[in-house]
Amino acid sequence: MNELVFVGLGLHDEKGISLQGLEEAKTAEKAFIELYTSLLPDFSIERLEALTGKKVHVITRHDLEEENGKLILDAAEKGKTVFLVPGDPFIATTHVTLRIEAEKRGIKTRIIHGASIISAIIGLSGLHNYKFGKTVTIPFSENASETPYNVITQNKQLGLHTLCLLDIKTDQKRYLQINQALTQLLDVEQKRKMGTATPETVAVGIARAGSNAPALKADTIKNLLTFDFGEPPQSLIFPGELHFMEAEALITLAGAPASLRSVAK
Amino acid sequence: MNELVFVGLGLHDEKGISLQGLEEAKTAEKAFIELYTSLLPDFSIERLEALTGKKVHVITRHDLEEENGKLILDAAEKGKTVFLVPGDPFIATTHVTLRIEAEKRGIKTRIIHGASIISAIIGLSGLHNYKFGKTVTIPFSENASETPYNVITQNKQLGLHTLCLLDIKTDQKRYLQINQALTQLLDVEQKRKMGTATPETVAVGIARAGSNAPALKADTIKNLLTFDFGEPPQSLIFPGELHFMEAEALITLAGAPASLRSVAK
Repeated sequence: MNELVFVGLGLHDEKGISLQGLEEAKTAEKAFIELYTSLLPDFSIERLEALTGKKVHVITRHDLEEENGKLILDAAEKGKTVFLVPGDPFIATTHVTLRIEAEKRGIKTRIIHGASIISAIIGLSGLHNYKFGKTVTIPFSENASETPYNVITQNKQLGLHTLCLLDIKTDQKRYLQINQALTQLLDVEQKRKMGTATPETVAVGIARAGSNAPALKADTIKNLLTFDFGEPPQSLIFPGELHFMEAEALITLAGAPASLRSVAK
Repeated sequence: MNELVFVGLGLHDEKGISLQGLEEAKTAEKAFIELYTSLLPDFSIERLEALTGKKVHVITRHDLEEENGKLILDAAEKGKTVFLVPGDPFIATTHVTLRIEAEKRGIKTRIIHGASIISAIIGLSGLHNYKFGKTVTIPFSENASETPYNVITQNKQLGLHTLCLLDIKTDQKRYLQINQALTQLLDVEQKRKMGTATPETVAVGIARAGSNAPALKADTIKNLLTFDFGEPPQSLIFPGELHFMEAEALITLAGAPASLRSVAK
């Protein structure tokens, strides 16, 4: 049967795949993987191949974005093919294009979901999911823009939290760090002066979500700048209005200053 | 070691758990599960017990919310305990309280993430994650309020999509359906007349995300009212401004009217 199954790999290593995802990979005629849209810090293709009992072909950004995933589509036209993707497959918008192309070619598609950085970071922080506004990615300094500052400002005006993903360039092994992202935001604050990201603003830094030793720290930007979050991947949350249970979570789980209690509602 | 490990079960059946989640359950001294915060349509405790090789104790809403999870905390003080939870564990805010209480008692906590309804629905729709605003839950008609309408309106004004979760009462086996949710929104539209949810407004209905046969349909509310989405759980998305690739995704993947192309940017 010609079929393309997108399988989420979850967050950290090859054991983030679900039991069903593993079954789909085992029973596929051909298996592909991409590891450039997210960093899976402890992932080993060899260990995944041992688990699935089959060769897993690595797909590059070029294969997918310049060649439009031809390798994958051609295989899926011949028989059941799995495409293994970090996190939950379609949080990376580039894969939506491949799915549309497959459907247009008459290839049936299915999705085996995996844990996503989005829900993982929200969960780790202890903040309430329904109080998050629009998500934003903070780019490397050479591509710095005021967009992240504007998104955080807009969300705060609505009382909402902002999840900030930090840019990665996996092919260059470059991962934006929390202190670099904060420095960019402080620079914009100097110009815009809206109070969105001052040295006294409280933010939440998270590193290695999905690992057995994630780092989680809520503090003023001033203090977060020198906090050692360790290895990537790293992310940030800018809280909006805090419910008192959210303040309690940040204090107990993320070592936030107890003074947060006085601003919670 | 006294430790409480929250393990996400993912979306549909017992094969939504990750390989690491299963390992944690196998090596725990005691295992608990709750199945009331989300519906896992094809889940079987017996099959999970066969996979983990141990008895899994079912925790009720009363145990958790009235007794503050005493059963779980007492077990975790004696040895490694897993608490199995549908989806990604902390998308249900009630579990954050348990984690805080555990940490306050000196019990180490860890999270093994699972696929969440949030990223799954966004992924299935083909819409871009970073264009979603605040999420909202649409309640049963006896608790109807204007909040969902207001959240959708606010997101639309910002050009953003709205993910609408539909209320469930698992203990009564009641699951709000897409047509019931749409009827509520049409009622509010009659009063408020802001154009947020008219019979001609395009929305996206999704049922059984995470199963092998999810239903996905984008159409006018008028047409969605009579579309057969089948079994629960069901959800809705109200699109804001559409990127042309998002319109293409809704047309190809969700059978949206081709006229959507003309409103995309």
